[in-house]
Amino acid sequence: MLETTTSAIRPPDEAAMAAARELHGRLTKPAGSLGLLENLSVRLAGLAGICPPPVPEPAAVAIFAGDHGVHAQGVTPWPQEVTAQMIGNFLAGGAVVNAFARQAGASVTVIDVGVAHPLPAPTGSAAPASTGSAAPASDLAAPTGSAAPASDLAAPTGSAAPVSDLAAPRLIDASVRRGTRDLSVTAALTRDEALAAVLTGVRVADELIDAGAGILLTGDMGIGNTTPAAALIAAFTGVDPLDSTGRGTGVDDATYAHKVAVVRAALARHTPDPADPLGVLAAVGGLEHAALAGLILGAAARRTPVLLDGVIAVSAALAAAAFAPDAVAAMVAGHRSAEPGATVALRHLGLDPLIDLGLRLGEGTGALLALPVVTGAVRVLHEVATFDSAGVAEK
Amino acid sequence: MLETTTSAIRPPDEAAMAAARELHGRLTKPAGSLGLLENLSVRLAGLAGICPPPVPEPAAVAIFAGDHGVHAQGVTPWPQEVTAQMIGNFLAGGAVVNAFARQAGASVTVIDVGVAHPLPAPTGSAAPASTGSAAPASDLAAPTGSAAPASDLAAPTGSAAPVSDLAAPRLIDASVRRGTRDLSVTAALTRDEALAAVLTGVRVADELIDAGAGILLTGDMGIGNTTPAAALIAAFTGVDPLDSTGRGTGVDDATYAHKVAVVRAALARHTPDPADPLGVLAAVGGLEHAALAGLILGAAARRTPVLLDGVIAVSAALAAAAFAPDAVAAMVAGHRSAEPGATVALRHLGLDPLIDLGLRLGEGTGALLALPVVTGAVRVLHEVATFDSAGVAEK
Repeated sequence: MLETTTSAIRPPDEAAMAAARELHGRLTKPAGSLGLLENLSVRLAGLAGICPPPVPEPAAVAIFAGDHGVHAQGVTPWPQEVTAQMIGNFLAGGAVVNAFARQAGASVTVIDVGVAHPLPAPTGSAAPASTGSAAPASDLAAPTGSAAPASDLAAPTGSAAPVSDLAAPRLIDASVRRGTRDLSVTAALTRDEALAAVLTGVRVADELIDAGAGILLTGDMGIGNTTPAAALIAAFTGVDPLDSTGRGTGVDDATYAHKVAVVRAALARHTPDPADPLGVLAAVGGLEHAALAGLILGAAARRTPVLLDGVIAVSAALAAAAFAPDAVAAMVAGHRSAEPGATVALRHLGLDPLIDLGLRLGEGTGALLALPVVTGAVRVLHEVATFDSAGVAEK
Repeated sequence: MLETTTSAIRPPDEAAMAAARELHGRLTKPAGSLGLLENLSVRLAGLAGICPPPVPEPAAVAIFAGDHGVHAQGVTPWPQEVTAQMIGNFLAGGAVVNAFARQAGASVTVIDVGVAHPLPAPTGSAAPASTGSAAPASDLAAPTGSAAPASDLAAPTGSAAPVSDLAAPRLIDASVRRGTRDLSVTAALTRDEALAAVLTGVRVADELIDAGAGILLTGDMGIGNTTPAAALIAAFTGVDPLDSTGRGTGVDDATYAHKVAVVRAALARHTPDPADPLGVLAAVGGLEHAALAGLILGAAARRTPVLLDGVIAVSAALAAAAFAPDAVAAMVAGHRSAEPGATVALRHLGLDPLIDLGLRLGEGTGALLALPVVTGAVRVLHEVATFDSAGVAEK
């Protein structure tokens, strides 16, 4: 099935890109005055194969969640239980990703691809911090908790629940195993396990697009997941682990030095081959990283843009590009994460991020902040008058 | 009246800022992981004097339009008639600012403070470049053209027309004179003319806030207006005109060198005193620059945030800060314009821009792209659960 997906990924359509460039020259604005938005709209025309490309609506955030055996090495001060607890928070609508998704009009789907601890029963206690009028009470009052039957990918519910339904963040149970093995001791995953996670990502992309999504946004949750991301970035780009490893959610100097040493030792142990992306994901990756690579491939095969969040997303994007180089045409870099590895990966992919605000939260939050820029870039091609039609003189 | 406004502008509320910082530490995210959004939300709490501050909705874009006597010096390749023609385009809904405003849910008000040429009669010809489904036909089919009676500030229509009514961009006729004098030959404005434009800006701010706006966005239109902006930035910051002058909507090398020479000669002729902002605006400013300074002062006096667009806006912001230093607390820098003077001005004001995408269009487009970041920063304080309420463990 993965071969079917990767072989469906085509280069961008040059004629549609030329048409978008030509149209930009006729719109009532100085040539080039929309800067990177013009390039972005041209890329999206090439991806869609038509000018103007479809307005990328509605948006769907897919948050893949997993745990990590390397947590045992003390690479993060957060307890591993937080991965499961934050899934409860997502489903109750109480996390930052929920606030940004409500604002942007995006749906939220959480996919458990490998959480170690049991998901908490919904308590209804995830109330907003204040009772400000902006908090949609209906969302918070009727959470879809983990006690509700999780939808099964084998019996997709996507077509029954409209993707634009913001009232109910959804949970999909697609667990491959309850967390990876410790990549500093052994391979994190078998090749079969890594492939299962990649294929889950492809299926989620198909399901969300079948349900009407015009753009997919990457999200992630997994305590410790910046460590495998740093290893993936070093493996695919060849940089030293010191340049691909960051402080994640915030570690002190001693923990940071230890984290770099763990990544360095793992790469020395496994010597992953960047030409074998499944092998790299299995050796030093994570289940959410593998699934995100699949989501990106699935979106690219459907010629649908995928808006990347932070360092976890771009590490997965490197894997996707190794599976199918033309998948890069479907990628839009949402933001430049504060994690140094994100900048290394974006440079390797040749992507310019849209937002650079020092975010390092994950969840899909950076992608959601960038979404209006993407939508706006496309709407210009649909809605702005030409010099001729508006009766405006040219220089 | 200006003294009444400036004396109402107070420093930020330290207690509200402290409360916002404390709340950020309890929300379900790693401390500091929202980067500049956390600082922004703390600043807005200080401005509002309460935590959380009000969600800045609805948004209102105020586009001040004027022409420039210095156009006669050949500082731009665009004909002066384009200022009036683009107002027709704004009112017909066909410009980029209209597309972005529709997407963001913002109203658009155009204020003629000094356009030289007659505004075109509405033709209904400003059709979108394509017939994409995203173009709201009702907006484009029923433009509020210049033949419709322009509202009069003495008889405000703001309270009758809800500020969130996106169907009808509004025109306000508040012309001080039909374009400035040539600042390379004489003072662009008399002090009385400059004051009239500033007071118009204050009144527009009051009218929009009275009509319910939660945030004001600066917009501008005026062929040639980057030349007075460069002069204002040099006058208020002390940099050399070479560092404050850019290529505007696109000029060749020879025109650029001439433009720098024009700015340099004007500053040598007038030697404006940065401690006398009205004198600076009169000597080397423009009517839209003066009105934008007034809009910023009016917003600050009402403790309402004002989201700055590009180089015209930040040159006006320097004037506002010279009138009332605490007005900076109300300013949010929407984006970093490609014009070099914008970066000079932002550094002088101590403001970090939210977006940096190489835009150089004006109209308010950069501010509109940044609006969801501002709204999102505030919504986090209203909507995100605390560790305690969500049952999530801390590190």
